[in-house]
Amino acid sequence: MSAPAGAASCDLLLTNATVLTMNESLEVYPRGAVAVTGDHIVAVGDGLDQWEARERIDCGGRVVMPGFVNAHTHVPMTLVRGLADDLKLDVWLMGYIMPVEREFVSPDFVRLGTGLACAEMIRSGITSFADMYYFEESVAQATAAAGMRALCGQTVLKFPTPDASSYEDSLALAREFIVKWKGHPLIVPAPAPHAPYTCTAEILRACAELAVEFDVPIHTHLSETLFEVDQWRKTHGMPVVPWVKKQGLFDAHVLCAHCVHIDEGEMRTIRNAGAGVAHNPSSNLKLGSGVAPVTKMLEIGVDVGIGTDGPASNNDLDMFEEVRLAALLAKGTTGDPTVLPAQQALLMATRLGARALGIGDITGSLEPGKRADLIVIDLNGVHSIPHFSRDPHAISARIVYSAKASDVSDVMCNGAWLMRNRQLLTLDEQALSDGAREYAKKIDAFLITREGSVLKKLVAIGGAVETESFEVQVKARIASDAPVFVALESKEITVIRSAHYHQYDSYFSFADPGQGRLRYREDEFLDEKGTVTNVRARLTLTGEAREGQFGSVILSRSRYLAPATHSRRFYREYFRPASEREVEKERRRWLLVYRGVEFYVHLDRLIAPARDGYFLEVKSRTWSRRDAQDKAAVIMDLLQVLGASADDVYAEDYVDFGG
Amino acid sequence: MSAPAGAASCDLLLTNATVLTMNESLEVYPRGAVAVTGDHIVAVGDGLDQWEARERIDCGGRVVMPGFVNAHTHVPMTLVRGLADDLKLDVWLMGYIMPVEREFVSPDFVRLGTGLACAEMIRSGITSFADMYYFEESVAQATAAAGMRALCGQTVLKFPTPDASSYEDSLALAREFIVKWKGHPLIVPAPAPHAPYTCTAEILRACAELAVEFDVPIHTHLSETLFEVDQWRKTHGMPVVPWVKKQGLFDAHVLCAHCVHIDEGEMRTIRNAGAGVAHNPSSNLKLGSGVAPVTKMLEIGVDVGIGTDGPASNNDLDMFEEVRLAALLAKGTTGDPTVLPAQQALLMATRLGARALGIGDITGSLEPGKRADLIVIDLNGVHSIPHFSRDPHAISARIVYSAKASDVSDVMCNGAWLMRNRQLLTLDEQALSDGAREYAKKIDAFLITREGSVLKKLVAIGGAVETESFEVQVKARIASDAPVFVALESKEITVIRSAHYHQYDSYFSFADPGQGRLRYREDEFLDEKGTVTNVRARLTLTGEAREGQFGSVILSRSRYLAPATHSRRFYREYFRPASEREVEKERRRWLLVYRGVEFYVHLDRLIAPARDGYFLEVKSRTWSRRDAQDKAAVIMDLLQVLGASADDVYAEDYVDFGG
Repeated sequence: MSAPAGAASCDLLLTNATVLTMNESLEVYPRGAVAVTGDHIVAVGDGLDQWEARERIDCGGRVVMPGFVNAHTHVPMTLVRGLADDLKLDVWLMGYIMPVEREFVSPDFVRLGTGLACAEMIRSGITSFADMYYFEESVAQATAAAGMRALCGQTVLKFPTPDASSYEDSLALAREFIVKWKGHPLIVPAPAPHAPYTCTAEILRACAELAVEFDVPIHTHLSETLFEVDQWRKTHGMPVVPWVKKQGLFDAHVLCAHCVHIDEGEMRTIRNAGAGVAHNPSSNLKLGSGVAPVTKMLEIGVDVGIGTDGPASNNDLDMFEEVRLAALLAKGTTGDPTVLPAQQALLMATRLGARALGIGDITGSLEPGKRADLIVIDLNGVHSIPHFSRDPHAISARIVYSAKASDVSDVMCNGAWLMRNRQLLTLDEQALSDGAREYAKKIDAFLITREGSVLKKLVAIGGAVETESFEVQVKARIASDAPVFVALESKEITVIRSAHYHQYDSYFSFADPGQGRLRYREDEFLDEKGTVTNVRARLTLTGEAREGQFGSVILSRSRYLAPATHSRRFYREYFRPASEREVEKERRRWLLVYRGVEFYVHLDRLIAPARDGYFLEVKSRTWSRRDAQDKAAVIMDLLQVLGASADDVYAEDYVDFGG
Repeated sequence: MSAPAGAASCDLLLTNATVLTMNESLEVYPRGAVAVTGDHIVAVGDGLDQWEARERIDCGGRVVMPGFVNAHTHVPMTLVRGLADDLKLDVWLMGYIMPVEREFVSPDFVRLGTGLACAEMIRSGITSFADMYYFEESVAQATAAAGMRALCGQTVLKFPTPDASSYEDSLALAREFIVKWKGHPLIVPAPAPHAPYTCTAEILRACAELAVEFDVPIHTHLSETLFEVDQWRKTHGMPVVPWVKKQGLFDAHVLCAHCVHIDEGEMRTIRNAGAGVAHNPSSNLKLGSGVAPVTKMLEIGVDVGIGTDGPASNNDLDMFEEVRLAALLAKGTTGDPTVLPAQQALLMATRLGARALGIGDITGSLEPGKRADLIVIDLNGVHSIPHFSRDPHAISARIVYSAKASDVSDVMCNGAWLMRNRQLLTLDEQALSDGAREYAKKIDAFLITREGSVLKKLVAIGGAVETESFEVQVKARIASDAPVFVALESKEITVIRSAHYHQYDSYFSFADPGQGRLRYREDEFLDEKGTVTNVRARLTLTGEAREGQFGSVILSRSRYLAPATHSRRFYREYFRPASEREVEKERRRWLLVYRGVEFYVHLDRLIAPARDGYFLEVKSRTWSRRDAQDKAAVIMDLLQVLGASADDVYAEDYVDFGG
């Protein structure tokens, strides 16, 4: 009984409940009561019959427990839930999520998405959450309006974002946001350096200094993928946690999301720094990142909370699913069914989560003096019965292993009801749904247009440039390369520069030939000894149709070039071509002048599809049909000078050669 | 459009639905309709506007898809849901589930538990399931009454079960059940040999013959744990699947539950046998068994369905949770987010599952001619929106990653509605809940009595025998063992037999000392060279109180002995002692006659807690207080003959010696 002996009056008394306090001794009161005055709890215990209350609510034997703490999410992303699934992280993020965010994210988008997320979270018994997004002030506004508690992290990145064109701007935004919201009863503002690999050491230090200056936490992503950790070891000679420690990040209270790939030393560093971890089991599985070693973290004494991550990678904000998954995964991955028992999983989702967010002093358990953040759960559904009462702590297993979000009947945050009998009191679900549908229509239209066009998809991932020039070109097969080298020594030809490559091309074709053909080329530059000195990858989108033909000379139309910053695999999964063909060749390339005209000459040895002898390509930029016609004549002469005749001409592209 | 050209009339037309057919080409009709006549589907397609129908239902844009197939469960176990959680498999099964089953399982229990399970399954969109339990005819009756479709497996075990005292009896029961139910429109009866390790080769062969005789499937557990597979390799020189194949099990259609630890060769064997696999991700995680390699199984072409397993190890019958978990786990364990995409996960939960059960010809997809087993899902909850329509197959991801059991609005099985607008039509939930509560009270009372008594817990796991005899005993410390060996050679003493052991004792003490003390002893028998020749483990429960004392001689009261068939770890987790102490010693033991009385003499060298010198224990059985008093005198004389004096006597047990 935690009720003070003297005091016996409160605003609200919840009676006839199974009360899970989640306090230090994990007390459960099978016939318990909770007394609330204003925004806080004044007593928790058995009966509390002696208490006077302005209002009494009989809970009919239902469970009363602390509201869940969703330790990591990106709430506005409800608006992109289900946009793209079952894709590799890079394709999903850079191919879909980021292009849509660049196009649509605004304060309005963020407010609406946050409102929708709050509706969903309240319905699944969440009262507090830790967020990280753009326009975070709009998240804070919508959250406060919904009556929920949140750690709101304003994202800081080294790249331009929807709300800031530089990291200095986003840092200034973060400062402004913190100054304005610090001390709010529901909102804790924070800088959110996105992740070590999307920030610089300077950004991390600046964020830590900002957090220390205002005594607010930091919200960041750490060690989510093995790739990230491997890169860190290669580049910095250490894993991620010691490196961010070196940058002074842990001078502030840090909420570290993920920590899927950290070792025991890093766990101790996190614990010693008083930092918290947000475990996101669904998201880590769904994106193929793995399973965080939470059993070990808990053993070492780290404050590990549980988070849903953003609804684009989960795809919901359901803490019942997360808590259950956390408990099950720990057993399945250790092979020990006794680890992470139900009560400990609930503890992570409440008190430990609150500590991880740095708000453990005011929420996360039902104790006198803490804020009244609580939920009522009805365990009388057919999926929840029977109930064995021999062990009062078995109630935890009922909640973790068989209760569902839809069993939450009432939710209170900061002493105010947000939901009663499954009716939301602070949000208009219909308006939110209508708003979400409007955005979905616009995003659909944007993506349908883009998906319908290989060019638009190329532009969406950035860097594509249209090359305006047209070319005249001719290709001929020759048995020996000797005449070429002889000709290049002749007076008629002036060589401006030359190069030597090994070229690997993948040609993506699409069901609609009008989309053109996309080439992914990797050029290995070779020195005189044939050693690779440099590698370059480029994308080229070429229209199928040719503009014209002058005898054997082809006039090809404009095309789009982009540096290929992703892998061949990325482009394959992103563009999903109907078919794909490979061409491999050794190329010598010269820029030369012949009869006052600049030509590119390629001498190619085809490796795949394999061909004996050599191919000679001669090309020249052109600007008009007339110019093209004139050059077509010169080009045929040059071809002969180089040792080929008009009979040797091939109109086909290499990629169209038979296997 | 699968509607036949001519026919255009049906009993029921479901219109305005997003129809997921789950047919071979996985067609989705975004503005689809389903026509039903009698128990089967007559058409599926876009609109079906030309169809005449006795009844038309506008689905308001909701999803219509095949009902889920729960590929493995034990439905009556709803009544023991949440009985005991977070325990090792052996403690959970042999310490709790089996003792409760022995006490309570009856046709009435089974009917009630099945009814409760059907209510829960219908609510989560399941129309077919594969069961295995005792009194399976009662499962079949309750399932048919609920209107659901099921493969009902009558359990066959080599041990006595709640419904059969021998395996011959349970085999006879299975035959009788099959004869009676074969051909039922909803029920497929089957023999269910529990698992290779709980059956014999003979049982497996008999079950296969029975299944072949009646052309029914077999339902069994295979390769659930690594322990099982390791044992099989050790004992039979091969893993489980080839061994059961050798026994002819695959002569029948086999539904193999679990298959967590099978290799690629075994997967091919299963595929070639046309057998099916039931993947139970929650249960396999919760019991620490691991994650079945379903990605590989699917690649090889095995029909893998998804099951909830029994509600005692899950703890619910929610296919939405299972399907989501199956999709997520495959990605998390392979590190590849593109594996087991949502559509394939749904396929496992419907058409592949039906094939695994051997009912793929009549259910699992929405196709003309198949039974009308379908569900309606409302994807308008705040957790399910928005909806992007650019890819019609994205609907699968919405169902798998964010829909919930509570989103199922209507369920039809075999052409009959089982739920409309979340109201169950064939089951009385209140009566089922009341019945479950009654059983829970009785089970609680049974376990509370048992848990309150170490003796009852000992009896519950079997084999405990009360030893009625009383003993007089005395213990003395001696510096050297030489006088003992000298005395044993003397004429006064006749040695009947002797032995030499290394003994490891764990003493479990309980908060209530009245419960007595439980000793787990491992005896290593040593030969003359000190080599271990045999090991024996025993449990002894001794009362704390001593009956009397005659000078230095103690009269101890009766105690309970049981062979220790489980591990020390099992007993520790099962009895949960308040404290535990260890005693290790080397013991020489003689049965001898002195002055016409039989005595046991122990010469002990105490290793832990370590003591110099030796301890001498002298004991004799007694039957009355008077006899005890007489022997107490003789015993002190014998002690002196053996080289100890009354001053050397120790009253304390070894376990009470200081560390």
